[in-house]
Amino acid sequence: MINKQILLVSRPKGEAATANFRLVEAPVPDVPDGHVLVRHHYLSLDPYMRGRMNDAKSYAPPQPLDAVMIGGTVGEVVTSKHPNFTAGDAVAGMGGWQEFSLVDGNAKGVLRKVDTSRIPLSAYLGAVGMPGVTAWYGLMKICQPKADQTIAVSAASGAVGSAVGQLAKAQGCRAVGIAGGHEKCAYVVNDLGFDACIDYKMHKDAKALYLALKEATPNGVDGHFENVGGAVLDAVLARMNAFGRIALCGMISGYDGTPIPLSQPQLILQSRLMLQGFIVSEHMEVWPQAMAELGGLVAAGTLKYRESVAQGIESAPEAFLGLLKGKNFGKQLVKLI
Amino acid sequence: MINKQILLVSRPKGEAATANFRLVEAPVPDVPDGHVLVRHHYLSLDPYMRGRMNDAKSYAPPQPLDAVMIGGTVGEVVTSKHPNFTAGDAVAGMGGWQEFSLVDGNAKGVLRKVDTSRIPLSAYLGAVGMPGVTAWYGLMKICQPKADQTIAVSAASGAVGSAVGQLAKAQGCRAVGIAGGHEKCAYVVNDLGFDACIDYKMHKDAKALYLALKEATPNGVDGHFENVGGAVLDAVLARMNAFGRIALCGMISGYDGTPIPLSQPQLILQSRLMLQGFIVSEHMEVWPQAMAELGGLVAAGTLKYRESVAQGIESAPEAFLGLLKGKNFGKQLVKLI
Repeated sequence: MINKQILLVSRPKGEAATANFRLVEAPVPDVPDGHVLVRHHYLSLDPYMRGRMNDAKSYAPPQPLDAVMIGGTVGEVVTSKHPNFTAGDAVAGMGGWQEFSLVDGNAKGVLRKVDTSRIPLSAYLGAVGMPGVTAWYGLMKICQPKADQTIAVSAASGAVGSAVGQLAKAQGCRAVGIAGGHEKCAYVVNDLGFDACIDYKMHKDAKALYLALKEATPNGVDGHFENVGGAVLDAVLARMNAFGRIALCGMISGYDGTPIPLSQPQLILQSRLMLQGFIVSEHMEVWPQAMAELGGLVAAGTLKYRESVAQGIESAPEAFLGLLKGKNFGKQLVKLI
Repeated sequence: MINKQILLVSRPKGEAATANFRLVEAPVPDVPDGHVLVRHHYLSLDPYMRGRMNDAKSYAPPQPLDAVMIGGTVGEVVTSKHPNFTAGDAVAGMGGWQEFSLVDGNAKGVLRKVDTSRIPLSAYLGAVGMPGVTAWYGLMKICQPKADQTIAVSAASGAVGSAVGQLAKAQGCRAVGIAGGHEKCAYVVNDLGFDACIDYKMHKDAKALYLALKEATPNGVDGHFENVGGAVLDAVLARMNAFGRIALCGMISGYDGTPIPLSQPQLILQSRLMLQGFIVSEHMEVWPQAMAELGGLVAAGTLKYRESVAQGIESAPEAFLGLLKGKNFGKQLVKLI
């Protein structure tokens, strides 16, 4: 049997491109004692992968060249030589951009059995996976929403942002999204139940965004979940209420890779704001509670999500580049079976 | 008897100037029942007063025109018609830029009796007053220093900064100051016991400051107390360790009053930093604990401070403008008797 894999073979200079990746075929590995062979049903594509493609000092080591790209996966155990797993088990892990992966069954927290009786398998890569827990952590632990407060979130139609707004609504808050394009904004308000959504493509600079935000947030903004940075963060910062709290989850940079400055940092002092950057994988202690709550909401149908599904491992690079440009609509997946 | 007062008579356009103030003479007021007449011994001059001179939306209402400038004062009760106070009591309050003030003895927290048996009266405007509590709150509650961590502080020879570094040393930390000029830096290291101090006048941009800071902080910076902003904050941000904590207490703006951007806000995410702006007067609940600790340290001689004392109410405007330019050295006071 053949295991199709996608390797990172070069680092981007500026924008990432399909030429940075290469599709290769390897034999499906034999299964040593204590190990488990997993066939992936879905591969998760996530913005953090772009950072790993660079050879730069950051919070995580870079993705090695000529190795299978890292990534979250869900699938099914094909062969188990470990007592904790049985062929047929549904599992979530970090199998990478390939069709099969071999996992050491003794490695802690690497492969988790998941319950697909009430929750679709793919949701463990989205609303009940890393993006969902990211939303939960940033909102509940950093923004700490209280009833009747206003919570803003950028990239509001994405896997993280859509969960942030719905969790905020569940806390009795006004939820205001910022997203790119009329279709995404309509989805955020009509399907996900946000109170308002601002199309940033209609408001190109921070000043225009601020005015649109002012209209959508008559009582100001108490908590903000930032997935984007740049002009969006500048605009929201100017609309924050005293003692507002901002969770920093994603920050883009300018065209040539230079950072985009924050225009008015004095607002952090003037409005006595709290900003905190975070990476959800450093807060594993909250996963059980977050996963239980998110799973319950998804099973009950009150936490909705949308998926963009590309077909076949060959489509992963193109789908990933599209994700970086906001072409996806909801959680970007690659279906491998 | 005459009460000399200084009024704000116009708002600055750009830099503040002596023409914004006017010295007037008024009769010392009669003392109604329930009131207390205080003769001020010292007036405190503080950077926050500059913000109050503007007619701009901020966390505090602007100083009204043609009224006595606000300000902290310490002095002695001259006449008391309130049972809680007796002539001769040493008191601290917010008497403003004038020689006498009439205080309603029933107003909560406006006038406090202070103990001058172990602590000099003027210290209640500095190390055991608002600047000291500001240092204590930002360091202990926001930076939350732990032994062997490195704490940085800008405006390190000032009333707030000098206390931050000494309190950090008392927590077992490495304390690194940033100050303007060789004399101030020598004082910070030799007299106050900081481990190092960087003269920002020798390192004019953020890059040069960063390199000097790198040398002074071989293990990076874990907590930072920011009194200045601009290039100093840019430099320190780049030197922060993962999970570092920054207390934002003061932020300057550019020459023409426009805000100075933060160059690399993505570092907040990359290093998972926490930034928090604060104003100490909004945290009155910590004052008893902070004042007790600060008072104990001053009485024991382990919390040192320095004062710049101008003589006479007439000198207040000039001394205040000097403070804004960093001409003072330590806590700026005006002696009124």
